[in-house]
Amino acid sequence: MPKYTLGIDYGTLSGRAMLVNVENGDEIASSVFDYPHAVMDEALPSGKKLGVDWALQHPQDYLDVLYKTVPDVLSQAGVSPGDVIGVGIDFTACTVLPAKKDGAPLCFMDEYADEPHAYVKLWKHHAAQDEANRLNEIAEGRGEQWLKNYGGKISSEWAIPKMWQVLNEAPDIYDAADTFIEAADWVVWQLTGKENRNSCTAGYKELWNKKDGFPSKDFFKALDPRLENVVEEKLSRDITASGTKAGELTAEMAAKLGLRAGIAVAAAIIDAHVFVPAAGIDGTGKMLAIMGTSTCHMLLSEEGTQVGGICGVVEDGILPGFFGYEAGQACVGDHFQWFVENCVPAAYINEAEARGVNIHKYLREKAERQKPGESGLLALDWWNGNRSCLVDVDLTGMMVGMTLRTKPEDIYRALIEATAFGTRKIIETFKECGVPVSEFYAAGGIAKKDPFMMQIYADIIKMPIKIAGSDQGGALGSAIFGAVAAGKENGGYGDVFEAARRMGKVLDTVYLPIKENSDIYDKLYAEYEVLHDYFGKGANDVMKRLKDIKKSGQ
Amino acid sequence: MPKYTLGIDYGTLSGRAMLVNVENGDEIASSVFDYPHAVMDEALPSGKKLGVDWALQHPQDYLDVLYKTVPDVLSQAGVSPGDVIGVGIDFTACTVLPAKKDGAPLCFMDEYADEPHAYVKLWKHHAAQDEANRLNEIAEGRGEQWLKNYGGKISSEWAIPKMWQVLNEAPDIYDAADTFIEAADWVVWQLTGKENRNSCTAGYKELWNKKDGFPSKDFFKALDPRLENVVEEKLSRDITASGTKAGELTAEMAAKLGLRAGIAVAAAIIDAHVFVPAAGIDGTGKMLAIMGTSTCHMLLSEEGTQVGGICGVVEDGILPGFFGYEAGQACVGDHFQWFVENCVPAAYINEAEARGVNIHKYLREKAERQKPGESGLLALDWWNGNRSCLVDVDLTGMMVGMTLRTKPEDIYRALIEATAFGTRKIIETFKECGVPVSEFYAAGGIAKKDPFMMQIYADIIKMPIKIAGSDQGGALGSAIFGAVAAGKENGGYGDVFEAARRMGKVLDTVYLPIKENSDIYDKLYAEYEVLHDYFGKGANDVMKRLKDIKKSGQ
Repeated sequence: MPKYTLGIDYGTLSGRAMLVNVENGDEIASSVFDYPHAVMDEALPSGKKLGVDWALQHPQDYLDVLYKTVPDVLSQAGVSPGDVIGVGIDFTACTVLPAKKDGAPLCFMDEYADEPHAYVKLWKHHAAQDEANRLNEIAEGRGEQWLKNYGGKISSEWAIPKMWQVLNEAPDIYDAADTFIEAADWVVWQLTGKENRNSCTAGYKELWNKKDGFPSKDFFKALDPRLENVVEEKLSRDITASGTKAGELTAEMAAKLGLRAGIAVAAAIIDAHVFVPAAGIDGTGKMLAIMGTSTCHMLLSEEGTQVGGICGVVEDGILPGFFGYEAGQACVGDHFQWFVENCVPAAYINEAEARGVNIHKYLREKAERQKPGESGLLALDWWNGNRSCLVDVDLTGMMVGMTLRTKPEDIYRALIEATAFGTRKIIETFKECGVPVSEFYAAGGIAKKDPFMMQIYADIIKMPIKIAGSDQGGALGSAIFGAVAAGKENGGYGDVFEAARRMGKVLDTVYLPIKENSDIYDKLYAEYEVLHDYFGKGANDVMKRLKDIKKSGQ
Repeated sequence: MPKYTLGIDYGTLSGRAMLVNVENGDEIASSVFDYPHAVMDEALPSGKKLGVDWALQHPQDYLDVLYKTVPDVLSQAGVSPGDVIGVGIDFTACTVLPAKKDGAPLCFMDEYADEPHAYVKLWKHHAAQDEANRLNEIAEGRGEQWLKNYGGKISSEWAIPKMWQVLNEAPDIYDAADTFIEAADWVVWQLTGKENRNSCTAGYKELWNKKDGFPSKDFFKALDPRLENVVEEKLSRDITASGTKAGELTAEMAAKLGLRAGIAVAAAIIDAHVFVPAAGIDGTGKMLAIMGTSTCHMLLSEEGTQVGGICGVVEDGILPGFFGYEAGQACVGDHFQWFVENCVPAAYINEAEARGVNIHKYLREKAERQKPGESGLLALDWWNGNRSCLVDVDLTGMMVGMTLRTKPEDIYRALIEATAFGTRKIIETFKECGVPVSEFYAAGGIAKKDPFMMQIYADIIKMPIKIAGSDQGGALGSAIFGAVAAGKENGGYGDVFEAARRMGKVLDTVYLPIKENSDIYDKLYAEYEVLHDYFGKGANDVMKRLKDIKKSGQ
C-alpha cells in the first residue's frame, strides 16, 4: 500500500491541508478553510477598536483549519488513517502569540478576551515600528555582530519588536504570558502536546542563530531592563531544525482529526521557505525565487557568510544541515498591478475587454513584440522600497528615458525588466560575497503563468530558469517535511534531499537565456547598476528628501 | 473716424486676417482660411511620394488666405477701405521657398511642379538633419563666434540646412532659384511688389546678425565650395527691422483685396515673436512665455549678451531697437496630452465623462487638492529633449519618487511642476548671464485657460504672472506692427512701445506667488537642479546611451 503524508499550509486568510503520496509526490486531495476571523485590523470580535497598522488573528481559526480540512482530505481520498505516516506545518511569519505554560492562548481566557495584545500578532502587524527603530539604533550603536546576518536592519514585523510593544503598551499581558510563541510552533504544540520551536522562524524572525544562540542579555537589557531575561522568561533556547521530527501526534488530536496516534509531526517552517523542497531543490547553489506580489529568494549553502543587504542567513533555516539565505524584492507583482490600476488608458482596457483578454495579457502581447532596449526606458524597481541589497524602505521608484512616443506597454515592460535587474543584482551580490548561485528556480503564480516575463528574467540573469511544478508549493513542501520526520523506517525518507527529489516537482519547461537579448541587457544592466548606486548609496539622497518634504507638509 | 489696421497671421494649417482698431486695439472682425494643400508630408499634389521627415506647403495657399480673408473682414466690419491704414504679417518660421527674380515660386512653373524641392519647406520639414549636423560640426570646429548666439547649436529647421539639402539632392533646382526667401517675406513681396527681408527671421533662422551680418564666405565655403557665395547668390544682405515699414501696398493687390493702394506694409515677423507687442509689453526685462504644445520665451534687452543654451539673441529680432532673446521648452502642453493619452486609467476617463468634464480638468481638480511636495514626485521635463538651457534633443524624460500609492493626478501635477522648474531654470540662466528678467507674462491657450497651472508657475518662478489678453495674439501683434509701419502721420504710431501699450492687451488677473508654496518649491527646485545637471551635463549620459541602444536594435 502506498504511504501518505499531510502538508498543512497556513496563509494569511486561510489554511489548507493536502494529502500527498510519499513515493512520488502525487497530490491526492486538498481542502481549504477560510479563517472565520480573517485579519482583524479594525476591531476585536467584541467591537473594541484597534490602532493604525494593527493586524491580529484568532488562534481558534488555526485549530478549526485542522478540524475541518484534515478529515475532509481523508474522506475525499478514501485513504485509511493507517497509511498516513506524518504531518508537516508551514505558516506565515513572524506571526506570534502570548500563551500560558500549557499552551493556552491568553485570548482564550475570558479576562483577556477584550485585550488586543492578548491575540495573535499577524506578520503584517506594523504597529511596533517605534520599537524596531529603537532596536536597530541600539544594536547598531553597540556594534552587534548578529545584525549583519540580517543585512544590517531588522523589521518591525519580527518577534522582539512585537513583544516589546506588548511590554510597553500592556505590561500586564506581557507578565501574564508564560511564553510568546510563533503560531507555526503553537500548532505543532497542539498536535504533539509539547512545546517545540523551529529553527526557521527562530533564525529569521527571532534573532537566534545556531552557533551563538540569541543576542546577549546585555543587549536585551540595553533595549529595556525588563527585557534582560526575555529569552529565558518568554522564549526558549531549545530549537529544533525545521523539517526534522518535532514530536508525535497525541491520541486526543489523532481522534479529532481521524489520524493514527503517534505519527511523526515535523518541526514547522515559514510558508515561503518550504517551497525549496517542494521545487525539488536537492542541493546548494540552487536559488529559488517565489514570485508573487513580492519576491522571496531562497538559497542553500554549506557555509554561513554575512552578505551585505541580504534579509537573513540562518543555519538550518531552510533545510536541516545547511545555511539558508533569504533575500527579497518588496514589489514585483504589485508593480504591475499598480501600473494596471493607475496608468493604463481606457483605449487599452476597452480593447482588451472587447477581445475578452485579461489586461495583463493584453499588455504583455504588445510588450512582447519589442526587442530588449527598444523602449529606451530604464527603471529602478523601488516602488515599495528596496528589501535587498540596500535594505532601505525609504527608497522610491525611478524611471528614465520617456519621450512623447513612449507607450504604456513600454513602461510595463520596463517595470518587468527592472524587477529582473533587481534579481540579477541580488544574485551578483551573493556571488561577490562568495556564496555560489549555479541554478535558478522560480515558483509562484507569475513563474507558471507568465512565460514572457520568465524569458526576460532568463535573458537578464543569464541563467536557465526552471519552474516549480506544484500549485500548492507550501502544502507540498510541508508534506515532504512530514515524510522526512516520519523517517525511512516508517515508510518516509531518511534524507531531505532524497525526499525533495522524489516528492518535489519541477516543470519540463526551462527558460533558456537568448544570447542576443542578454548582450543588450548586459548594457542596460550596467546602466541600472550606476543608477542603483547613485540613488541608493548616498550620492544623491533625493528619494529620501522628497519623502521628507512630503511628510513635512502633512 | 477711427482708423484700422490688418494683422495677417499665417499658421501651420491656416491663415487668419483680423481688423483692429488702431486707437484701442479692439478686434473688429476676423476671418480664417484653411490651406487647401495643408501640410504635404506624404506626397505632392501630383501624387509623387515624399521622403521621411518631409513637410512641404504650397505658396498659392498663402495668396488665397489674402484673397479670401481680407475682403471677408472688411465686409463683416463694414469698414471703408480708406480707414485701413496698414497691414502687418506674421508667419511660421523657418518656412522657406525657392523663387525667381520676380518673386514667382519655382513650384508655380510647370517644369518644376513635380519636383519636391521646388515647394515651400515648412518649419517642421526635418529632412535636412544631416546637413544641420555637418553644419554644427564644422562651425564648432572652426570656433565660429556667431554659434554662441544660438546656444551653441543650430536646428535642422533653419534656412541654411534646408537650402543645402536642396543643393545636395536637387542641384538643378538650387541653380534655377534666383533666391530663397522666407514665406513671411514672400507674402510682403506679393503685397508691396518688392523683395524685402525681415530682421526677425534673418536673425533667428538665417544666421544673420545686425553687427556682423552673415557668417563669413570662408565658413560657407568650408560647408561646401558651392555655398561660398550663398548670401549674394540666394539671400540678401539688405535686412529691414521687423515692425518697421517694408513698403506700400501695390495698386494691383489693393484692388484684389479691396484695400487702398499705398498703405503701409510692415516688415514681417515670426508668429511667436509678434505676441510680445500683442501682450502690451512695452519695455525690457519683461519675459513673455507663449505656452502651447511647447513654450517659447521672449525677452527684450538693451544689450546683446551670449547666454549659454538660449535659442537665439537677435538685434531688432522682436522689436526694433532692442536685442530680442528667445528661449524655449520643447514639451509643455504635449506633456499633458501624452499623459492623458497614455497614462490615465479607464476609471478616471469614465468618471470624467459621467460628469461631463474634460479629462484635463478632471485631473487638475484632483491635483489641485494637493500641497506642493505632497506627491513625493519630481520629474525632468525632457520628454521631447531640452531646447534651453542644455540644447540637447537626445535628452529624455525622468521621474523619481513613485510608490505603490502614487496616483495618476500625482504624476500629472509632477509633469506640470517639471515644466515650471524648466521655466525657472531659463529665467535664472538669463539672470546669471546679466540679462535682467523683472516681469513675467504668459500667453497662449494654457495661460488663459488654466489658473491651476499658472498658480504653480507663479509659486515656482516666484514672480507675479500677467496674462496676455487677446485670443489672437499673432494677428493682433501684426496689426500693431501695421499701425507702427503706417506712422503717426497716417493715424498710426511713431513708437512701437506706445502702440503696444495702446493696442496690446493684458488681463486683469495676475497670479501672485504664495510664499508658503514657494518655500517648498525652492527645496524641490534645488533637487531639480541637481538632477538637471546630473543627467543633462555629462555626469551620467544614460539618456543618450539608452537612445543609442534603442537605435542599434532598429
